[in-house]
Amino acid sequence: MAYIGLDIGGTKILGALLDDEGAILDKEKTASLAEEGFDTFLSQVHHVIDTLFERTSEPIAGIGVGVPGMVDQQGVVVFTPNLPMKKFDLTSHLKERYHTNVQLGNDVNLGTYGEYKELKIQHKNVIGFFPGTGLGGGIIINGRLYIGKGLAGELGHIVVNKNGVPCSCGNEGCLESYASKKGIIAYLQSQLDHGRDTVLRDAVETGVIKSSKLKKAVDQGDVLAVEAIEQFKEYLGMGVGMIMNIFNPDLILIGGGIIDAFGEEMLIDIKKHAKHHAMKGIYKRTEIRQSRLGDDAVIYGAFHLVRD
Amino acid sequence: MAYIGLDIGGTKILGALLDDEGAILDKEKTASLAEEGFDTFLSQVHHVIDTLFERTSEPIAGIGVGVPGMVDQQGVVVFTPNLPMKKFDLTSHLKERYHTNVQLGNDVNLGTYGEYKELKIQHKNVIGFFPGTGLGGGIIINGRLYIGKGLAGELGHIVVNKNGVPCSCGNEGCLESYASKKGIIAYLQSQLDHGRDTVLRDAVETGVIKSSKLKKAVDQGDVLAVEAIEQFKEYLGMGVGMIMNIFNPDLILIGGGIIDAFGEEMLIDIKKHAKHHAMKGIYKRTEIRQSRLGDDAVIYGAFHLVRD
Repeated sequence: MAYIGLDIGGTKILGALLDDEGAILDKEKTASLAEEGFDTFLSQVHHVIDTLFERTSEPIAGIGVGVPGMVDQQGVVVFTPNLPMKKFDLTSHLKERYHTNVQLGNDVNLGTYGEYKELKIQHKNVIGFFPGTGLGGGIIINGRLYIGKGLAGELGHIVVNKNGVPCSCGNEGCLESYASKKGIIAYLQSQLDHGRDTVLRDAVETGVIKSSKLKKAVDQGDVLAVEAIEQFKEYLGMGVGMIMNIFNPDLILIGGGIIDAFGEEMLIDIKKHAKHHAMKGIYKRTEIRQSRLGDDAVIYGAFHLVRD
Repeated sequence: MAYIGLDIGGTKILGALLDDEGAILDKEKTASLAEEGFDTFLSQVHHVIDTLFERTSEPIAGIGVGVPGMVDQQGVVVFTPNLPMKKFDLTSHLKERYHTNVQLGNDVNLGTYGEYKELKIQHKNVIGFFPGTGLGGGIIINGRLYIGKGLAGELGHIVVNKNGVPCSCGNEGCLESYASKKGIIAYLQSQLDHGRDTVLRDAVETGVIKSSKLKKAVDQGDVLAVEAIEQFKEYLGMGVGMIMNIFNPDLILIGGGIIDAFGEEMLIDIKKHAKHHAMKGIYKRTEIRQSRLGDDAVIYGAFHLVRD
């Protein structure tokens, strides 16, 4: 008996075949081709699953899928900013095509759940922060993924500056507008507009900065890059402190490309800012830890979702 | 078989005897006398419980207690800003004195739980906002009171203005600094300092404003009172919207003296602001309702906590 875990992203689709214990037996990866529209994108999804089916003789007990967007309780994709799906019942579609159990979830929710399950953490209540292009979150309550009516965990969309900068969600001053690559690019752009300069100028102009490039710029002492990262840490730490006041959780997991590139040193600063913004009795009871699974977190979360 | 529900407040202690079904059989109320120190305060607590014991022949199956402060998972009162208790194990103390089951909780958490249980709400995930002098919150997840490591639900201490006004918790720009009587008084004081005037001047100087007085001032068209209430609604609505993005709950309950004084009209404005700050797919799936139990909410929550 085996399971398929799928991580559907804006640019690539990553699939894995896992045994009942969660060991990865096979992997397949392809481009999402989101820009070519719904039909092409969907055939890419089929391609990954078909390939994993073809290369195994094991019966498939279920397919777990992480999607970068809003998924409701029925497994319908309500909205994905970077993929050509809107109100699409991907769950039913895959069930009919593959005749197996299918479970869908938000990718960051599943990433948090994957980290939680694979690290065999003894904690009950865990919150995950995953800053990337935007800022996603995941909530584990009593050892189970919490999604509320399906869309919970939008930790990037808590307001930290009333009347602050407009956010893509329609709100203003959202945490995501500061504690994400989007926020870093916006800061650098604003400083370029003021006539200052940075080694990241070209990247800012394309709108895409790799985490490794950001780390290199900071290591070189690029003043704007250092300032942008300081702002990032300050806001992310504040978000962590606020979430502690709301959830008083056992553990906060922080992951994603930027965190992985900067490592422990960045975590120390984030903790310092979290401490400033959390209530005293709460801060000292909560552990803050860097996530470890990297690119495989969503795959594992999807696997555990469908297996359990 | 009967239960005792206790609502220990900064100025008064309210106790009730309830039967197994939650019908209130008897009530007793006394002053907290917090200003006279720990021993006097504790004897006031005893007085209320002793009186309820003496006036019934029913065996007492348990005592539930709501406390205006931080209570940890073991039922120890970690901190209460307005009562002379610090790191006091009130649970063990009452167990030893009354030889019965005792359960302690934060008063606003229990108020939310009481509302939830007594309204026989079919929802699973409910968040309560109770603005009073400060701003407290309560969280119900999967039909159960959620307290994390004991101190969850500090919804007044989420930052809505980074580098905003200092809060009593040590942080800056907390929601409580705007969406509470403390916030209303601070606004009025700041305007008085600028040479403006209000019918609430005397009340502002004492630092205490009754909700009914606030309502009267607004009805009279007092400009500063109207502005202060507008700010209150705007921030509370924003807090509600943010909490929706985090929890995607079934229901948001809003209660407390100000809400009760202003009623449905105020709720309409709070909903408007919440809608602006919540993500679209989330707002339309969440009900917002005024709480109904008023002063008895904590009593009921304490009863349900100890009975269940």
